[in-house]
Amino acid sequence: MDEGIVVKKIRRAAPEVVEGLQQAGVATVHEAGATGLLSSVIKPIQQGTRIAGSAVTVSCAPGDNIMIHAAVEVIEPGDVLVVANTSQSDHGMFGELLAVSVTSRRCRGLVIDGGVRDVADLRSMGFPVWARSIHAAGTSKNKAGSVNTPIVCAGVAVSPGDVVVADDDGVVVVKRERATEVLEAAERRLLKEEETRVRLSAGELGLDLYGFRARLEGLGVRWVDSTDK
Amino acid sequence: MDEGIVVKKIRRAAPEVVEGLQQAGVATVHEAGATGLLSSVIKPIQQGTRIAGSAVTVSCAPGDNIMIHAAVEVIEPGDVLVVANTSQSDHGMFGELLAVSVTSRRCRGLVIDGGVRDVADLRSMGFPVWARSIHAAGTSKNKAGSVNTPIVCAGVAVSPGDVVVADDDGVVVVKRERATEVLEAAERRLLKEEETRVRLSAGELGLDLYGFRARLEGLGVRWVDSTDK
Amino acid sequence: MDEGIVVKKIRRAAPEVVEGLQQAGVATVHEAGATGLLSSVIKPIQQGTRIAGSAVTVSCAPGDNIMIHAAVEVIEPGDVLVVANTSQSDHGMFGELLAVSVTSRRCRGLVIDGGVRDVADLRSMGFPVWARSIHAAGTSKNKAGSVNTPIVCAGVAVSPGDVVVADDDGVVVVKRERATEVLEAAERRLLKEEETRVRLSAGELGLDLYGFRARLEGLGVRWVDSTDK
Amino acid sequence: MDEGIVVKKIRRAAPEVVEGLQQAGVATVHEAGATGLLSSVIKPIQQGTRIAGSAVTVSCAPGDNIMIHAAVEVIEPGDVLVVANTSQSDHGMFGELLAVSVTSRRCRGLVIDGGVRDVADLRSMGFPVWARSIHAAGTSKNKAGSVNTPIVCAGVAVSPGDVVVADDDGVVVVKRERATEVLEAAERRLLKEEETRVRLSAGELGLDLYGFRARLEGLGVRWVDSTDK
Amino acid sequence: MDEGIVVKKIRRAAPEVVEGLQQAGVATVHEAGATGLLSSVIKPIQQGTRIAGSAVTVSCAPGDNIMIHAAVEVIEPGDVLVVANTSQSDHGMFGELLAVSVTSRRCRGLVIDGGVRDVADLRSMGFPVWARSIHAAGTSKNKAGSVNTPIVCAGVAVSPGDVVVADDDGVVVVKRERATEVLEAAERRLLKEEETRVRLSAGELGLDLYGFRARLEGLGVRWVDSTDK
Amino acid sequence: MDEGIVVKKIRRAAPEVVEGLQQAGVATVHEAGATGLLSSVIKPIQQGTRIAGSAVTVSCAPGDNIMIHAAVEVIEPGDVLVVANTSQSDHGMFGELLAVSVTSRRCRGLVIDGGVRDVADLRSMGFPVWARSIHAAGTSKNKAGSVNTPIVCAGVAVSPGDVVVADDDGVVVVKRERATEVLEAAERRLLKEEETRVRLSAGELGLDLYGFRARLEGLGVRWVDSTDK
Repeated sequence: MDEGIVVKKIRRAAPEVVEGLQQAGVATVHEAGATGLLSSVIKPIQQGTRIAGSAVTVSCAPGDNIMIHAAVEVIEPGDVLVVANTSQSDHGMFGELLAVSVTSRRCRGLVIDGGVRDVADLRSMGFPVWARSIHAAGTSKNKAGSVNTPIVCAGVAVSPGDVVVADDDGVVVVKRERATEVLEAAERRLLKEEETRVRLSAGELGLDLYGFRARLEGLGVRWVDSTDK
Repeated sequence: MDEGIVVKKIRRAAPEVVEGLQQAGVATVHEAGATGLLSSVIKPIQQGTRIAGSAVTVSCAPGDNIMIHAAVEVIEPGDVLVVANTSQSDHGMFGELLAVSVTSRRCRGLVIDGGVRDVADLRSMGFPVWARSIHAAGTSKNKAGSVNTPIVCAGVAVSPGDVVVADDDGVVVVKRERATEVLEAAERRLLKEEETRVRLSAGELGLDLYGFRARLEGLGVRWVDSTDK
Repeated sequence: MDEGIVVKKIRRAAPEVVEGLQQAGVATVHEAGATGLLSSVIKPIQQGTRIAGSAVTVSCAPGDNIMIHAAVEVIEPGDVLVVANTSQSDHGMFGELLAVSVTSRRCRGLVIDGGVRDVADLRSMGFPVWARSIHAAGTSKNKAGSVNTPIVCAGVAVSPGDVVVADDDGVVVVKRERATEVLEAAERRLLKEEETRVRLSAGELGLDLYGFRARLEGLGVRWVDSTDK
Repeated sequence: MDEGIVVKKIRRAAPEVVEGLQQAGVATVHEAGATGLLSSVIKPIQQGTRIAGSAVTVSCAPGDNIMIHAAVEVIEPGDVLVVANTSQSDHGMFGELLAVSVTSRRCRGLVIDGGVRDVADLRSMGFPVWARSIHAAGTSKNKAGSVNTPIVCAGVAVSPGDVVVADDDGVVVVKRERATEVLEAAERRLLKEEETRVRLSAGELGLDLYGFRARLEGLGVRWVDSTDK
Repeated sequence: MDEGIVVKKIRRAAPEVVEGLQQAGVATVHEAGATGLLSSVIKPIQQGTRIAGSAVTVSCAPGDNIMIHAAVEVIEPGDVLVVANTSQSDHGMFGELLAVSVTSRRCRGLVIDGGVRDVADLRSMGFPVWARSIHAAGTSKNKAGSVNTPIVCAGVAVSPGDVVVADDDGVVVVKRERATEVLEAAERRLLKEEETRVRLSAGELGLDLYGFRARLEGLGVRWVDSTDK
Repeated sequence: MDEGIVVKKIRRAAPEVVEGLQQAGVATVHEAGATGLLSSVIKPIQQGTRIAGSAVTVSCAPGDNIMIHAAVEVIEPGDVLVVANTSQSDHGMFGELLAVSVTSRRCRGLVIDGGVRDVADLRSMGFPVWARSIHAAGTSKNKAGSVNTPIVCAGVAVSPGDVVVADDDGVVVVKRERATEVLEAAERRLLKEEETRVRLSAGELGLDLYGFRARLEGLGVRWVDSTDK
C-alpha cells in the first residue's frame, strides 16, 4: 500500500503549441474546447501572471510532500508542477525552498490542490502559484506517492504531459493529444473576438450583433416601456 | 415558463444623491439606515475602488447570460448592472467583451451573484466588479429571464433604480425612495465621525467618549489589576 | 451571565524575543515548535506585512464590539489585539475609528475571528489586520465580555501576553513561556535553511540533500523510465 | 433604526388551494412554475413530512428572537412561520417552548434561515421544521424587527400570505396571487407523470417516450458499441 | 517535536452532577451558564440519544489515530472521549474496532473534531458519536500526540475531567470546577420552563408572559392592522 | 463542442467479486487498497443500505439530465449509475420517474456528484442514492454529454465497469482490473479484524495488541500519573 512510482520520461506538447495556448489564456482556451477547467477553489496567489507548460503530475498523501521532492528531478525547462493529495488537505506543502529548487530547473509554476506557504517569498521571487489555500502547517516526508502518473486535481483528470494554462481566471488543462486542435480553435476565436470587440466598443449591441433579439422573442421575452403605476 | 420581460424605462435617484452616497461609502451608508447589505460572499475583484449608481437589475438562468446582453440596451450613463441567478452558479457570466459593451454605455460597474472571467482584462480596463467567484466556465445563451424587475441578489431584494454603493467593504443597496433620507443620515454621521476621529487620534478613549465605561459597569464587568498568581 | 472582567496588567515576552520571532516569520516559527497556528480562514487584508507583538485578548459576544473599546485602555506599545467571538459572526466589528484609537496607543495590528470594515482606510493607514471576513454589518455595544482572559481564536487557545506573529502566511501564536525556546529553534532553522537554499539554488536535489531517495526506496517507490506503450 | 412593524391582518390563499399545493409537493410545485425555491442549505429536521400553509413572515436581528414572540399573536390556524435574519446567524432561535406556543395556535410548521434547538423535543412533538442549522446557542430578546412584511429568506423574496410548501426535498414559496394558476399547472403535471410512470415502469425508455434520441443525435451524440481496444 | 504525554489520572466531577447535567440536556445547560458550546459542524450520527460524562481528551496529528489507542487505557466507566486534531482533517479516525475497545471500558461516547467510519456498525452497537464528518479514509498510527491535556475541540477549550453533555442539539462542555453551579442554574431553569410550558400551552402569549410587548414598544415597534392598499 | 458518445457495451467485474466487495463494505475495501474514495460531500439519502455494482458512468452538463436518460438504455442488471457534472451543480437531476425507469432495468443505485429530488419517494421505493445535495431545482434536457466514458466524480477518476461500493460510510470505487486483488486483501483483512474484535472486546488494549506502546515510547511519548498541582 505504500508503493508508488516515479516516471522519468514523459511526452510533451510542442513548445510553440504551449506558447500559443499561453497567449490565448484560460478563458479562451476553455471556450475553444478544452473541458479541463479546475474548480474555482484553486486561486492564484499573485495577480497579472499567465503561464503555460507541460504537466509534471504529483500524487501526495495528505500532509506529506516528499513526492514533490521526488518530482524535482524529472522537471524539464518549461514544465508546470501539478500536485494533488489523495484526500483533501490544506497543509502548506510547498514553500520558498522548494520554489528555489524547481526554479533551478526552470519550472514555470505550481498548480496544487492543497496549501502553500512562504507566499511573501514566492511572490517576491516571481514564482507563480495557483493553490487551494495558504497555510503554514508543516508536512511530514515519509509517505509514498507517485510522480508522472494520471491524477485528479481539483476535479479534473490530468495526465503527465498535458498542457496546463493558468492565469487570473484560474487553471485549465488541455489533453496533450488535443493541444494543437484546441490551439487552432482558440486562435480562430481570438480573431473573431477582435472583430466583435471593435463593434461593441463602437456601441453596437450584442442583441443585434449575435442575433439574440430574435432568439429572446422566440423564448417569449417581451419588451415593455415601464412597470411604474 | 420560458417567458420574461425587459423593462426599458425605470426611475432613478437624483444624480447628486447618488454622488453623495458614493462619497459616504458602504459602511457609513449601511450604518445610516440602509438595510440592504449584500452577503460577504460578494467580493470586489479590485482594490481601492468605490462606485455608486442606479441598479439595472438582471435575472438569469444559472449558466446562461443572454439576459445580460438584453440589459445592455437599457443601461444609461451612471447605471450599475446588478445580476442574479435563479439558482446558485459560479459560471463566468461576464467577461471582457461584455465589459467593452457596457462601458460604451457608460455603465459604472457590475455586481453579480455569480462568476466573472477575463479578470485581468477587467482590472486593466478599470471596469469595477463585485462577484461571487472568478471562473472561466462558459455560458449558454438560450434561457429567458428578465431585466429591470425586482430580484434577490446575495440575500438582498433589489428593485430597478435602487442606488447601489460598492467599495472594498462590499455592496449595499439603498431603496430609491429612501435614498435622500439615507444620504442625510450618512452626512450627519460623517460629520460626527470626523469629530470623534480627532479626539480618538489624540488618545481619548472610546470608553470615555461614548460613555461605555458606565455601561460596562452596569453589565457587571469588573476591572482587575492582574490574574497572575 | 452578563459578567466579565478586564485585566489591566499582563506579563509580556521580552521585546527582543518578540522582535526575533517577527524576523523569523510565521512558517519558520510554526516549524520551530509553536503549535498555535490559526485556521487558514483567518486571512490578511493586506500583502507584504509581517508583525509580531504581545496578545491583548478580547472575548466578544457575536455582533457586539464594546469589549474592543474596553481593550484599548490596556494596550501598551507593541501589543497586538486578538479578538474572538463567543459564537461565529462575520459582522464588521472593527473599522477605521477603532484603528485610529488603537494606533494612538501604538498597537501593532489586529487578529480577529470575525469581520472588519473600512478596509480601504485600514489599508491606507497601514494598520495591519488578519480577519475572517470583510463585511460592513454594524455592531451593537451592549454585551459584556472580557479583556485579557484566555480565549480560543480560530481554533487556537490564546492567553494574554502570548506572542502573536502574523504575515502573508497567516497567524501563529507562541506561548509566552516558550517564546525564548521557540526563537532559538527558529534561529537554528533559519541558519540551516540558508545553507540548504544555496545548495538547492545550485541545482542540488532535495532527494539527495535530505536523503529522501533512500527513504522512498524503503517505502517501495520505484523509478521507471516511461509508461508509454 | 430600531423600529419595525407588526402587521396583524394579511390576505391568505384559499384553503383548498393550499391543500392542493401540499398534495403536489415541492418538486412538482416548483416545476409547475413557482420560482421561489429556497436554497438547499435549508433542510428538514425530520423525514417524511410534507406541509403547506400561508406564510407569516418574521424579520429578526441575528441572534435575537423577540420578533418570533411577536409573531405568535398574529398566527392563524394553517399558517407557517417563515423567519429570516437581517444577517446570517446560526443561533438556535426557536426551540420547544416556542413550538408549544405556536402549536397552541395551530401553526403548521417553521421555515427558518437560521438555527433551531431542542430538536429532539420538536421531533417528538411532531412539529415540522426546515432550518439552516441545529445549534443550542441562545438568543437575546431586545432587538426590533418586523412581522408580516416582505422578507428575503434563503435567497427567496417572501411576502406575508404567500403559500409555503415544504417536504423532504426542501421548501418552495408560491406567490399568493399565482397560487391557483400554479396549482392547476401542478395538477396537469401530476396527471401526465402518472401516465409516464406506468410506461417507464413497463420498461419503455425515456429516450423514446420523450423523443430524446433524436434530440441527442441533433446535438451530435453518437452511439458506439464499445471503446475496448 | 514528536513528543507528547499521556496523563493517567484526572479529576472528575461527581457522578450525580454529571447525571443531573445529562437530564438537563445541551440547550438548557448552555443557557444555564456553560459557555462551552461546540461549533454546529459537530453533528450526531444518531438521533434521540443524550449522554453526559467526564472528558478524556485526546490530541492527534491530522490523519493519525494512535493516540486514541493510547487513550483507551486511561478511560474509566462513565467517561466520554473528546478528540481534536492539531489541524483540520476529516479522515475516519474512529471505527467499529475502537468502539468495541472503548465499550469494554464502559466509555459513554465519542466527540471528535474529525471523521468517523463504520457508522452503520456504530449505530447498531448503540455507541453514541458526535463528529465533524463521516469518511472512510484510513489513518496512520505513527505520530505522537497527547492524552488528558487541555485541547481545543471545535472552537472550545476542553480540559480533562470537564463534563461533556451531548444530544441532538450538539455538544456543550462544562468546566469541572463550575459543574455543580451550572447544574443548579439548569435545574432552576427547568422548573421555570415547566411553568412557562403550561401557560404557553394554554394559549398565553410570550408577549404577555415575558413582558415583551412593552419592550417592543420601547424599541419603537408599531402594530398596524394591515398594509394592503 | 456539443458532441459526446454513448458506449453501449462495457466490461464488468465477475458477479461474485462484486458480491464479495459488497460484503466487505466501504471502509474495509478502502483499507484493502482501493484508493478511489469519493469526497465526504457525497452522502447517502438513506441509512443502513449497502450496495455494490458495476459503474455505468454519465457525464452531464450542469443543470441538464438528458444523458441520464441516454444511460438507462445501456444499464444491465447489477449496475450502478455514477453521474458527474462538467461543473459543480446542485440541481435535482434525478427523481422518482428516473428511479422507476432504472429500477425496471434492475439498476442497484445511484451515485451522483449533484442533486436529487423526490427523496421521500426514492426512500419509500427503496432505491439507494448517494448524492451531493437534495434540491428540487429542475433541469433542462438539451445539452450533449457522454455515457460510459471515463469521468471524474467527487474527486475520483471512474471508468465504466469499475466496481462501486457504497454504504453509510460513503462511496469507494475499485478499478475493474484490480477488483479481484482488492477483494482478496479485503477478505484477509476481515478475518484478521474478527480475531482483533474478540480480543478487544475482552478488554485487551490496542496499545498491547498492535505493539503501539513501544512505538509511542520511540516517538518520545511519556506516561505521567497526573498533572494536578
